[in-house]
Amino acid sequence: MVTIRPATAPDFAAVWPMLRDVFRAGTTYAVEPAISRDAAQAYWMTSARATYVAQTDAGIVGTYYIRTNQPGGGAHICNCGYVVAAAARGQGIARQMCLHSQDAARALGYRAMQFNFVLASNHGAVRLWHDLGFATVGTIPDAFAHPTAGMVQAHVMYKRLDPPT
Amino acid sequence: MVTIRPATAPDFAAVWPMLRDVFRAGTTYAVEPAISRDAAQAYWMTSARATYVAQTDAGIVGTYYIRTNQPGGGAHICNCGYVVAAAARGQGIARQMCLHSQDAARALGYRAMQFNFVLASNHGAVRLWHDLGFATVGTIPDAFAHPTAGMVQAHVMYKRLDPPT
Repeated sequence: MVTIRPATAPDFAAVWPMLRDVFRAGTTYAVEPAISRDAAQAYWMTSARATYVAQTDAGIVGTYYIRTNQPGGGAHICNCGYVVAAAARGQGIARQMCLHSQDAARALGYRAMQFNFVLASNHGAVRLWHDLGFATVGTIPDAFAHPTAGMVQAHVMYKRLDPPT
Repeated sequence: MVTIRPATAPDFAAVWPMLRDVFRAGTTYAVEPAISRDAAQAYWMTSARATYVAQTDAGIVGTYYIRTNQPGGGAHICNCGYVVAAAARGQGIARQMCLHSQDAARALGYRAMQFNFVLASNHGAVRLWHDLGFATVGTIPDAFAHPTAGMVQAHVMYKRLDPPT
């Protein structure tokens, strides 16, 4: 049983280790692997429009943010990022967070969601986003220096959000 | 005769009116049209990796920035933005700035240049970037609320940069 709720500032104590593991690995996010805790908090929480955590009996096992992808004339499209704790993978938590984020984004007035940089090497993410209705609208060649896979492509993925009913 | 040189902080007095006209119009850049002078300076100069101005006998007639498009594994790709003063358009200044920026980017170690948000309605820009060797690698539907053209698409454009010879 997973509960997804808005993150509070104290939640960052549980969020940071999950982000740290993912960012330090440098295999999925275009984030400086040596990013500091403070910079990660600014990126994931302070500068985001909204941040959520996914909680089970085991504690906080996932987190996501919503931010406006482009200001001005592009401000109707949001961007989200999702991280699941290593110990909680394979339980559908990313899927539940993405579904939740689409509702949250609609409620915030966004009309579409865009992922700017989905690495082609991140097969699970590509498959999941396609399964949830995202289309690949672009592919950037040699976009990311992967520590073991070499240069990998990145996809731009997009989904229109219908207004809340 | 156009000279392109690194911008200095005092140059912003001449740069700001050019940016202001473009940003206030809200037809080409995904920037909040009401952006303040300080926020524009932070965006165009302080937070950029490098900023240049194009100068003729008439004074400063154009400007561009280079920034790292994605941190971490994506940091070998730069992004640039160009603005030409209204009175100086049609003289090839954007083309000269883009050629200059490719050399400047190579010298900074970048291996590719990416434009994240080229509006399809900005026909002159799309044509110029294609002419200068940029490929359209993606197209975001309904990406931008244009004040007169309605919802327009935005292209992701990309060019590999050969190392300096």
